[in-house]
Amino acid sequence: MDTNFKKAAIIGVGLIGGSFGLSLRKAGFSGTITGAGRKKENLEKAKDSGIIDEYFTKPEEAIKDADLILLATPVGQFPGIMESISRHIKKGSVVTDVGSVKAEVINRLDPLMPEGVSFVAGHPIAGKECSGVGAASDDLFNNARYIITPGPDTDKKAQEKIIALWRSFGSKIISMSPDEHDAVFAAVSHLPHVAAYVLVNTILDLNKDENILRQGGRGLKDMTRIAISPPVLWRDICEYNREHILKSLKLFSSSISHIESLIEKSDWDNLQKEFQKARDGRKTLESD
Amino acid sequence: MDTNFKKAAIIGVGLIGGSFGLSLRKAGFSGTITGAGRKKENLEKAKDSGIIDEYFTKPEEAIKDADLILLATPVGQFPGIMESISRHIKKGSVVTDVGSVKAEVINRLDPLMPEGVSFVAGHPIAGKECSGVGAASDDLFNNARYIITPGPDTDKKAQEKIIALWRSFGSKIISMSPDEHDAVFAAVSHLPHVAAYVLVNTILDLNKDENILRQGGRGLKDMTRIAISPPVLWRDICEYNREHILKSLKLFSSSISHIESLIEKSDWDNLQKEFQKARDGRKTLESD
Repeated sequence: MDTNFKKAAIIGVGLIGGSFGLSLRKAGFSGTITGAGRKKENLEKAKDSGIIDEYFTKPEEAIKDADLILLATPVGQFPGIMESISRHIKKGSVVTDVGSVKAEVINRLDPLMPEGVSFVAGHPIAGKECSGVGAASDDLFNNARYIITPGPDTDKKAQEKIIALWRSFGSKIISMSPDEHDAVFAAVSHLPHVAAYVLVNTILDLNKDENILRQGGRGLKDMTRIAISPPVLWRDICEYNREHILKSLKLFSSSISHIESLIEKSDWDNLQKEFQKARDGRKTLESD
Repeated sequence: MDTNFKKAAIIGVGLIGGSFGLSLRKAGFSGTITGAGRKKENLEKAKDSGIIDEYFTKPEEAIKDADLILLATPVGQFPGIMESISRHIKKGSVVTDVGSVKAEVINRLDPLMPEGVSFVAGHPIAGKECSGVGAASDDLFNNARYIITPGPDTDKKAQEKIIALWRSFGSKIISMSPDEHDAVFAAVSHLPHVAAYVLVNTILDLNKDENILRQGGRGLKDMTRIAISPPVLWRDICEYNREHILKSLKLFSSSISHIESLIEKSDWDNLQKEFQKARDGRKTLESD
């Protein structure tokens, strides 16, 4: 790794923030890594695991002298964090994030960046449904995609440094516009997460037995695994990617209604065709 | 195994039918096992793997002298099969099935059973999304649940023999009324399967790129795995469990609409509460 970063600060040391720290170390980063977060016991755990050298509960203290600042909290906390740290950021630093929404994050953070500080927005595709620093790994980003979403104002030099960083973690770098990213991930990630939450609630509401979910097989378990994801994370994503998610949900709703009407009309041939289309589409993933 | 069955016929030698044959052998069944199905190459494969001793493309030939007959095709084929075999079934035989819907199967098959032949309806909870005899295993039903759904007309002796059989496979026997079974599995299995098919189609329809699904992460892969299930199987299940599935789909639709309206109203607190409810519900599965 040759990015010249000397001190890194991770704001939000959970699964992604913690894995970022471990990946930095693995890639040979020899500087100090500080962490900031709300829960002291979590930060203590991160320190004990060697992910961070020092921790602070106030982000403005963690970022002192840092030239690389990672925002790894739920996206809804980014603006507040930026407001509290902006006066303290060293000139020439690069701020980057790992949020699952990009356009709105850029809209809200760009105006908060002080003179001489660059913001590079990105999104590693490497979540797990289990959260927390305990699940962090130095291998989470290896062979995973890292989506970088530069806008017209993104500093090219800062961008190259962030790309070099993720490349050193073993990630495959993909560039997309912020809006393209948000449309694609509304479909392939945000909609499925919302659908998984709704599916679990529907099953619970259909039945008085609170153990109803245990009646299901492995299919149900696989399908609803992402409903374990942290609710605050997904609330924020829905807020920040509101329009694309609403569009996806509306199409999902009308597709469900279409299936309902086929069943109501006993139109089994067209129902089978719908299932076949989905099967053929999903099969393409099996070769990956 | 002490059930006194001497010759078994498996109609539909796929994942479940094939695993039934292998489980019979493993449990010490020493009689002949015949198979019937539509695809000769599949039956040939089943014979080569030692699952069946002989095969026939006509079910009425396969069941000659059999005292145990398993229906393991998609449920929609059961009535046609029964019509073609009923004149040929040996008196005293037991017919059983592994269909995912029970009330409608019993309604349609009971009138087709000849004098002296008993029908025992059941459902092993042991599917996989991969189908075909190649995926069959002698361990598929071990430690899995087997739901038996006796009605008032079910012959007690035949029922005890079928229970003893599945117990010898290592299955945990659970008894439910046919209608209770269908309501529960509409919620925990049929709705999730339909939702997975619809989710895949929605994602495909949201985007012009046919490789869109590959943009997703592991969450999407897990969540849509069951969309690989055979379409004809699920078309039949929708037909046979129409009312319960419609009820589940309607509640799912209205729950999706509720989430849409929370996002439209920017009611993030109540959105988070919905996600939290789902997470708490789903978490109960993790201890299993």
